[in-house]
Amino acid sequence: MRINGILAPIQNELQLVEARLRQVIRVDYAPLANVFEMLIGSGGKRIRPALCILSAKFHPADPDKTITLAVSTELVHAATLIHDDLIDKSAVRRGSPTINSRWSGTATVLAGDFLLARAADISASVENFRVMRLFARTLMTICEGEIRQDFARTHWPPNREEYYRHIESKTASLFVAATEGGAILSGASEEEIAAMKSYGHHLGMAFQMVDDLLDFTADESELGKPVGSDLRQGTFTLPVFYYLEHDARARTMGDFMNADMDQLIDAIRHSSAIAAAKAEAQRTARTARDALALFPDNVYRRALSDLADYVVERTL
Amino acid sequence: MRINGILAPIQNELQLVEARLRQVIRVDYAPLANVFEMLIGSGGKRIRPALCILSAKFHPADPDKTITLAVSTELVHAATLIHDDLIDKSAVRRGSPTINSRWSGTATVLAGDFLLARAADISASVENFRVMRLFARTLMTICEGEIRQDFARTHWPPNREEYYRHIESKTASLFVAATEGGAILSGASEEEIAAMKSYGHHLGMAFQMVDDLLDFTADESELGKPVGSDLRQGTFTLPVFYYLEHDARARTMGDFMNADMDQLIDAIRHSSAIAAAKAEAQRTARTARDALALFPDNVYRRALSDLADYVVERTL
Repeated sequence: MRINGILAPIQNELQLVEARLRQVIRVDYAPLANVFEMLIGSGGKRIRPALCILSAKFHPADPDKTITLAVSTELVHAATLIHDDLIDKSAVRRGSPTINSRWSGTATVLAGDFLLARAADISASVENFRVMRLFARTLMTICEGEIRQDFARTHWPPNREEYYRHIESKTASLFVAATEGGAILSGASEEEIAAMKSYGHHLGMAFQMVDDLLDFTADESELGKPVGSDLRQGTFTLPVFYYLEHDARARTMGDFMNADMDQLIDAIRHSSAIAAAKAEAQRTARTARDALALFPDNVYRRALSDLADYVVERTL
Repeated sequence: MRINGILAPIQNELQLVEARLRQVIRVDYAPLANVFEMLIGSGGKRIRPALCILSAKFHPADPDKTITLAVSTELVHAATLIHDDLIDKSAVRRGSPTINSRWSGTATVLAGDFLLARAADISASVENFRVMRLFARTLMTICEGEIRQDFARTHWPPNREEYYRHIESKTASLFVAATEGGAILSGASEEEIAAMKSYGHHLGMAFQMVDDLLDFTADESELGKPVGSDLRQGTFTLPVFYYLEHDARARTMGDFMNADMDQLIDAIRHSSAIAAAKAEAQRTARTARDALALFPDNVYRRALSDLADYVVERTL
C-alpha cells in the first residue's frame, strides 16, 4: 500500500499545503532560511496535514482554514524533529546532517521555537478559539514531554507506562491536534469530534510503536543511522519490553546493558519481541480504524482507514 | 519615584495577576515546578502586566480578559529571561543561580518553551483574534531576535542600527504586545490603538537603553554580576556607541577590545557617553509620554506617564 495512492482523494489540498509551507517558512535571515528549506522544503509524507484535511471532509468546511491548520501541524512536526535531534544528539537525519550537528544547541532550539511561533501565528488566522486552545495545549504537551525526556535517566526495571506516556506526548498528541482540529473546523458533532480524537490518538500511538520497531528491523542504509540507536542511547522502546519478558538473565540493568550491544540488538531482532510489538501496533491501529465507524463510508473514510493499515505496514 | 506608588491605582488588578501567575505555572513535574516558582513566584516589578492593565483602562474592558493577557505577557517575559541567561551563559540572575547554570542547555530552553506554550494557551482564552495574532507575532519577533543574537559575531565597526533592532525585538516588542493588546481588548479606536502601540514601543526602547546603561553604572552588588558584562562578552550597547564617537584611538576592534577591559569599562563609566546615553533614553521616554496626549487626563494616564519617567530614573 503506497501513501500516494491512499492520499489521492486529497491531492489538490496537499499541493496547496506544499505551496503554503514554502511561503510561511520564508525568513530574511539566510542561515535560518537555509535550514527551514532543507528541513521542510525537502518533502516528507505530510501525514499530519493529510489527517487534518481528511478529518474535515465529513461536513462542509472552509477549505482555506483547513489548509492553514494542516500547515500548522506540519510546522510543529518540523520543530519537534529539530528538538528531538538535539535531545538525542543525532548527527544525521535521513542522510543529511542535522542542524544541531552544525549549530550550537541554543541556536538549534531557537530555530525550532521560531517554527512553533510561526505555527501559533498562522493557527491564529484559523479564527477558531477551540482549535487554538487545542493547538496551544498540544504545544505544552510536546514541550513537557521533551523536558521529561531530556531529564529522564535510564532506570531499572524500565517502566512501560512511561514509554506509553512518552509516545503519547511526542507523537500522538499532534496526530490528535490534526484530527480533532479538522473535525472541529468542519463543524462536526461532539460525538464525531470525540471519534476523530480517538482515531488520531490510536493512529499516533501505532505510528510511533512502528517507528520504534523499525529502529530495530530496518536496514542501516534506510534508517540513515545505526540499527538499535534508541537502545544504544539507553532508551527502552516497545520491542525491549517484550524481549525482557522472556529474557530470564536480565535481572539487573548491568546484566542487560553491559552485554555486547551489537549482540543484544541482534538477539532482539531475531526474537519473538518483534512480532509481539508489531501485533500491539496492529491492535492499536485497529482501534483507530474502529473509531471511524460512525462516519459515512466514502473515499475520505477509506483513506483514513487505509492510513491505519499503512502506518503499521510501512517499512520506513 | 517608586514603582509601587505609580501602580497604586491598579493594585487590585496586580494582585489578581499574582494569583493567576501562581496558578498557571503549576506543573506536576517537580524539577520544572521548582524552577518556575523560583523565577516567577519570587516577584518582580510586573511592568508588562501593569502596562497591559493600564492600557485597557480608557474604555470599559472585560477585567478578566485584561488580567489574562497581562499574565501572558509576564510568562513570555519569564521565558525570555531563561533564554537570555542561556545565550549570555549567565551563571547568576539577581543573586540566584540561573537555570542554565544547573541544567543542560536543552532543558533550559525547553523550560522557556513550556512557558511560551503556556502563555499561548492562556492568551487563547482571551478570545480575541487580533490580540492572538499580535501575541504570536511578538513571539516570532522575540525568537528571531534571539537567533540573530546567538549567531551574531562581534564585528567592527559596530552597527548602531543593529543595536536598535536588537532591543526592539528583545524588549520593545513585548511592551507593545502589552499596550497595544490592552487597547485592543478595551475596544479602543484605531487612533488610540496606534497611540498605545507608539507609547509601548518607545517605553520599551527607553527601558532597554537604561538597562544597558545600568550595566555600566550600577554597583556590582546590585547588578549581581560584573560591571560591563555586555562589553566583556563583546556586545556593544548604547554607551559604547557614544564613547566610540570620541575615542580617536579606537580605529580597529583590536585597538578597542584588546585594551585592559577593566580600564576600558572604567573609562566609559567616567566619560560623557553615560550622560549622552541617558539623554537619548530620556528623549525616547518623552516620545512615549507624548503619545498619551490623546487620552483623557486621569489616574491611569498619569500612571503611564509616570512609568515613562520611572524607567529612565530607576537605579535598577
